[in-house]
Amino acid sequence: MPSVSPSLSTAMAQVAASVTEVMARLLPKSDFAEQRLFDAMRYSVLAGGKRLRPFLTVSTARLYGVSDESAFRAAAAIEFLHCYSLVHDDLPAMDNADLRRGQPTTHLKFNEATAILAGDALLTMAFEILADARTHEDPKVRIAMVALLAHAAGARGMVGGQMLDLIAETTRFDIGAITRLQRMKTGELIACATEMGGILGKAPAPHLSALRAYAHDLGLAFQIIDDLLDLQGSPEETGKSVGQDEQAGKATFVSILGHDRALQQARLLSEQAIAHLSIFEGRAGQLEDIAVFVVDRKS
Amino acid sequence: MPSVSPSLSTAMAQVAASVTEVMARLLPKSDFAEQRLFDAMRYSVLAGGKRLRPFLTVSTARLYGVSDESAFRAAAAIEFLHCYSLVHDDLPAMDNADLRRGQPTTHLKFNEATAILAGDALLTMAFEILADARTHEDPKVRIAMVALLAHAAGARGMVGGQMLDLIAETTRFDIGAITRLQRMKTGELIACATEMGGILGKAPAPHLSALRAYAHDLGLAFQIIDDLLDLQGSPEETGKSVGQDEQAGKATFVSILGHDRALQQARLLSEQAIAHLSIFEGRAGQLEDIAVFVVDRKS
Repeated sequence: MPSVSPSLSTAMAQVAASVTEVMARLLPKSDFAEQRLFDAMRYSVLAGGKRLRPFLTVSTARLYGVSDESAFRAAAAIEFLHCYSLVHDDLPAMDNADLRRGQPTTHLKFNEATAILAGDALLTMAFEILADARTHEDPKVRIAMVALLAHAAGARGMVGGQMLDLIAETTRFDIGAITRLQRMKTGELIACATEMGGILGKAPAPHLSALRAYAHDLGLAFQIIDDLLDLQGSPEETGKSVGQDEQAGKATFVSILGHDRALQQARLLSEQAIAHLSIFEGRAGQLEDIAVFVVDRKS
Repeated sequence: MPSVSPSLSTAMAQVAASVTEVMARLLPKSDFAEQRLFDAMRYSVLAGGKRLRPFLTVSTARLYGVSDESAFRAAAAIEFLHCYSLVHDDLPAMDNADLRRGQPTTHLKFNEATAILAGDALLTMAFEILADARTHEDPKVRIAMVALLAHAAGARGMVGGQMLDLIAETTRFDIGAITRLQRMKTGELIACATEMGGILGKAPAPHLSALRAYAHDLGLAFQIIDDLLDLQGSPEETGKSVGQDEQAGKATFVSILGHDRALQQARLLSEQAIAHLSIFEGRAGQLEDIAVFVVDRKS
């Protein structure tokens, strides 16, 4: 039995290819010496990846008939931001990772200074794209996206979560603290990616709440499976350095709950995520499929 | 003869105090472990500094009767962004600086990982503040500010300029390349700070062009004087590590033009900056004063 439905994996591959194309087009080019920076940005984002966040944005946007131009530009902005966070997280002073998506990390391929700057530039570019009228003609929609992303990615969201993750290497966190950490570190951006599709489509407030609730559960389920893969997977399967949390003696969902209860918890969260979609009365089948995929994936 | 008119130095001190108060209020607080990140953000921005960019934003905004609430929030956003760039530029992998505004740099006071994250969070917060309706009630104004700042601070602006600055340590740049580097590295953000005051005030396009032209000349003059101070000043006077460009064998305006011609060039740029303000028919006296100050300053 395949773990992902053929239609979902086809749809994901299509969106991944399209968003990667849009990202390639949006990246800057230069005839001057700063091309080195642009090369590092390009390297950091075009090595592949599941493009889960773009898929969430595009899938949600399509529920509202948003144009592909809008949906893919917004999705690209979120993926640029996600990629910046990977580049900075991989730095020697942070997780000191050698491998990402099966390739040397940006600071190894270029150097540390260039990797820091490439991350800074990708983060900044995410906001530049969202602010551009080509992403949506209504300035109210654009500014709502900027506000949403800035909050999700900032000190009270992703960056704060990364700080907690570093503190977790030396401080024993309980399950509540780990849940909060992961919600900030990965959950907020996943929720943002999903909600942004609704914002593009001027979705009513109850829809936005449902999308956010769905994505929060999805994000936690995603993270628990990430922790399981980090323990079980090989670098070949996952395309990144593995076993690092265990080596660092860091508490994770799996170290606290154990393998079986962690997996059970991820499944429960996935079901709960799907339940939040009832407001769409079956029209959000693709979002439901993602919730299944996130738990069943092998990388 | 005092180098700065008493009225200007009073006005600058008042704006610096007010914007620092607004920044302190905008910084996040937490009862959880991520407070460490928030402490590093606070440390990175509250150590003082001239607050030149906020002064430019506020001075320009006042030409149009913009409310202080709007002007100071936008000014705080730009200063947060400026401070992030200092934190990242000071990192060991970049300029490896020990001293900033007379204090240990953020990565020495905290650690490298925390400094990277504090910079990321300050950058992201700048956009969050600009996107907030309390900064300006018109979403068109807010999104224009986001677009302006993202462009000025990004790969084609400040971050690209910092990349060029690192490349300049090993590649011999001529005066044209140095001018372009400095325009990107510091000029774009100074121009953005000035123009933002006009955007807040819904200034007509010819005003925005004049403000931009003024600020570009001002920014270059500022940088030339920075290079001169880097050679002549002591850490006590400038509050930062000095002589680093010379040690690194990096070409600067001063190393290429020599002391006298560099100073002459800065004065010329300052006069040119003031000439661009003729469109305001004498109402932009404070901006004129800044152009004089930037060349006459001792730190």
